Amino acid sequence: MAIDRTLEMFRSPIPGSERSPAIRSVDWILRGVGQVVFQGNWLTGLVILAAIAVNSWVYFVAALLGTIVSTATAVLLRMDRSLVNAGLLGFNGCLAGIGLNFYMSNDVTIGEWPSVQLYLYMALAAALSTVVMGALGSLLGSRGTPVLTAPFVFATWLLMFAVYAFVGFEPGALLAPGSPAPLGETAGYTAETVFNGTFKGVGEIFFQDNAVTGIIMAVGILVNTRVGALMAVGGSLLATLLAMAAGADEAAINAGLFGFNAALTAIALGGFFFVLNRSGALYALFGVVVTVFLWPSIGVVLTPIGMPTLTFPFVLTTWLFILAKPAFPALTPVEPADATY
Amino acid sequence: MAIDRTLEMFRSPIPGSERSPAIRSVDWILRGVGQVVFQGNWLTGLVILAAIAVNSWVYFVAALLGTIVSTATAVLLRMDRSLVNAGLLGFNGCLAGIGLNFYMSNDVTIGEWPSVQLYLYMALAAALSTVVMGALGSLLGSRGTPVLTAPFVFATWLLMFAVYAFVGFEPGALLAPGSPAPLGETAGYTAETVFNGTFKGVGEIFFQDNAVTGIIMAVGILVNTRVGALMAVGGSLLATLLAMAAGADEAAINAGLFGFNAALTAIALGGFFFVLNRSGALYALFGVVVTVFLWPSIGVVLTPIGMPTLTFPFVLTTWLFILAKPAFPALTPVEPADATY
Amino acid sequence: MAIDRTLEMFRSPIPGSERSPAIRSVDWILRGVGQVVFQGNWLTGLVILAAIAVNSWVYFVAALLGTIVSTATAVLLRMDRSLVNAGLLGFNGCLAGIGLNFYMSNDVTIGEWPSVQLYLYMALAAALSTVVMGALGSLLGSRGTPVLTAPFVFATWLLMFAVYAFVGFEPGALLAPGSPAPLGETAGYTAETVFNGTFKGVGEIFFQDNAVTGIIMAVGILVNTRVGALMAVGGSLLATLLAMAAGADEAAINAGLFGFNAALTAIALGGFFFVLNRSGALYALFGVVVTVFLWPSIGVVLTPIGMPTLTFPFVLTTWLFILAKPAFPALTPVEPADATY
Repeated sequence: MAIDRTLEMFRSPIPGSERSPAIRSVDWILRGVGQVVFQGNWLTGLVILAAIAVNSWVYFVAALLGTIVSTATAVLLRMDRSLVNAGLLGFNGCLAGIGLNFYMSNDVTIGEWPSVQLYLYMALAAALSTVVMGALGSLLGSRGTPVLTAPFVFATWLLMFAVYAFVGFEPGALLAPGSPAPLGETAGYTAETVFNGTFKGVGEIFFQDNAVTGIIMAVGILVNTRVGALMAVGGSLLATLLAMAAGADEAAINAGLFGFNAALTAIALGGFFFVLNRSGALYALFGVVVTVFLWPSIGVVLTPIGMPTLTFPFVLTTWLFILAKPAFPALTPVEPADATY
Repeated sequence: MAIDRTLEMFRSPIPGSERSPAIRSVDWILRGVGQVVFQGNWLTGLVILAAIAVNSWVYFVAALLGTIVSTATAVLLRMDRSLVNAGLLGFNGCLAGIGLNFYMSNDVTIGEWPSVQLYLYMALAAALSTVVMGALGSLLGSRGTPVLTAPFVFATWLLMFAVYAFVGFEPGALLAPGSPAPLGETAGYTAETVFNGTFKGVGEIFFQDNAVTGIIMAVGILVNTRVGALMAVGGSLLATLLAMAAGADEAAINAGLFGFNAALTAIALGGFFFVLNRSGALYALFGVVVTVFLWPSIGVVLTPIGMPTLTFPFVLTTWLFILAKPAFPALTPVEPADATY
Repeated sequence: MAIDRTLEMFRSPIPGSERSPAIRSVDWILRGVGQVVFQGNWLTGLVILAAIAVNSWVYFVAALLGTIVSTATAVLLRMDRSLVNAGLLGFNGCLAGIGLNFYMSNDVTIGEWPSVQLYLYMALAAALSTVVMGALGSLLGSRGTPVLTAPFVFATWLLMFAVYAFVGFEPGALLAPGSPAPLGETAGYTAETVFNGTFKGVGEIFFQDNAVTGIIMAVGILVNTRVGALMAVGGSLLATLLAMAAGADEAAINAGLFGFNAALTAIALGGFFFVLNRSGALYALFGVVVTVFLWPSIGVVLTPIGMPTLTFPFVLTTWLFILAKPAFPALTPVEPADATY
């Protein structure tokens, strides 16, 4: 169809990239943002950046800074240009930039403008994510296992854990060590719990506590792939419903905190790394269910130091489910190049 | 000898397994239970199930449920049938089922009947253990290192850590976050400390706080291997004595908590993965000593979140001692197929 | 030059090593001590032992004990003799011995003489470090990644975490579980902060809170390599200045706690594992900056159980930066055999 040909255009480099390093750089950045949700499509990246801007210019700047620094680090260290061109050196930096900014803010919804020291630290985290990318690629590459957002998670954790130790940093309100305690009761669930849980769940992939932002992001994914958009929204919805069935805290569900990891797991297992046939669909469903419980599980481990799970529940679940691939002939793996759109 | 020929019978599939899927399934389950203590022998599994029933029907059901679900998951995902036939897809599920039931009970000795939600969760843990088995097999297989009970440990940890977060779950009395503190003093040791420490130590492999159950289990192992039974009891005894020499808490020793990991390490290193010559015996002894200290060590790490060590001290010690194999020509590795009986 | 020929002598075995097992053993021990700072040079080891003795005979004995036991364990298990001859089976035991002694003392600066039980435990840790060395070598060897001081870190952590559980052990004053808290303010920095931070930073590699000891140790490295000595002192200085710029606790900087991991990272990345050209120098600088923040970062993770970071910040940073090597063609790896002196 004509529309498919048009959309295909956005998967190719931005016209003029071959001639102009400036245009090429813009392509790297937009595509890098899109790769957070597995989309090598510069229009997806552009729509997502717009979705972030709708919520917060602070995080818009943080996303750009992180994406630029992690990509530039890769270029300076002369990483394989085909990886850079695919935007694969941008997405971890993008999340590292927003993530540090988010957890060092007191008003996390729209964020606070960072100090110079914090901006430097965000840049350091983004640069470190490129080294972690290289290291994990070396460890996992031979097993056909992708690094996912692990470079973002590890680089951000390693630097964020240190912020208590310096008077130059002011940890945000969410960074508060405590002792885990059973959830005694919770507020009642409403239709808003389901709506916000689902769409903020998509937005929280980029730390955006905003349902409109989440909806625009889903559209950004839809621009590149119908299956992916369905998985993102469906994964987040399913996680929201399951968390309600098991009796999770309403405020956490409402903020999309059960949804964002599940959305990523659903995209990854549902059609991207495995063919979405009957076995594949059941396997993806299984992975989403596990991810729902891994968010509070990893959260408990980090409670005594007051640190956040980031997207580690998604990374851990998806790693386990992909590493197990050779053991399960019932599943049909798909090479990322053949991913369904 | 006639008795050896008789015992050999129980290592083969239950007569009729070739014709009847029902009999084959029973063989998988019994053999799966036996594999917790490295015994691919359906009579061993049967004796162990009886030993559990002697202590608690709650845990008997949990053991069956876990073994069935993890095996069924493997069959659905079409795992290598020879692994399934050997019972290797059952033992982690068996422990995951009992383990979750145990730590979600207030009376842990005989356990409490789970809610429907908890039964579903136990099934999820057992199914997840099969995915973790596949994933770890992919990571460790090329290094000739067995997964041991790591799939049980990781699947159970990942789901158990999450239980605080849902009003639908009621964490048991043992799940209590705290701060580690030096042991100031302890009750005096008696002959009972040694007796219970040793035999409850065998029972605690399956979470059974019952010396008679432990003795029956040792008989279950003896049915398949004299060396293995000696190692199980001897490893638990040695750990008990060493814990007393170092001044551990009497109640913990008495409950067999120092024994169960050491019993497993002793079976694994003492004749199963290494030939039990002079070097091998010293190496196994070394491993048992290390395991004794790893139980409180891993326990301290988990104290701030109030979670249990499970059999991770055994897994970690045995992984280190087996991974190091190529570096130590003084030792003679043994292929599991040639394990001494 | 004549001086270079003379220095070369100390890299070869001590004269008479071929004939006398006693001299050979002394060579193993001295070289083992030197390998803590990557120097296969028996004079370096001798100078470092003297530097320790200047500060504390307690730690001098602990260093000897640990080095002897880890080396003897390797000999008993018949490890590759060329590794033993290079001193590579001594350095982790050396640190394990001092480390346990240090953290089980109340006066950590000069240490307290251990009980018999603690001496046995130090020996166990040193022996275990040899097994961990074999295990990690098996995991990392195929990736051209060195084990660094990870065997010391893991063996010591595993056993030190257990000390709360036994009345036979008295944890030292520094082992105190707590909750992480933001650093509100700090004492003012002085020239002494810089001086002590830098030279105690070198001394703290061996747990010596003594600037003179640190200076002698730097001389010990200088005996083998000008670049290495420059990196050790320069890395520690840079870490000290950066910690001051970011606003770290004066007492921690002054004690050299920001310096010791950075000194090791600087030696490793600055000329030892990568050629020290322009890219290599920037990469080493990047690694040192990351290490500075990893010391408090790992420290926060261990705060709830009151345990120390040891040299894990160095190990983790250097592993990441070396594992990423194949991804970064801008860097020129160097085989240890060709390390610059």
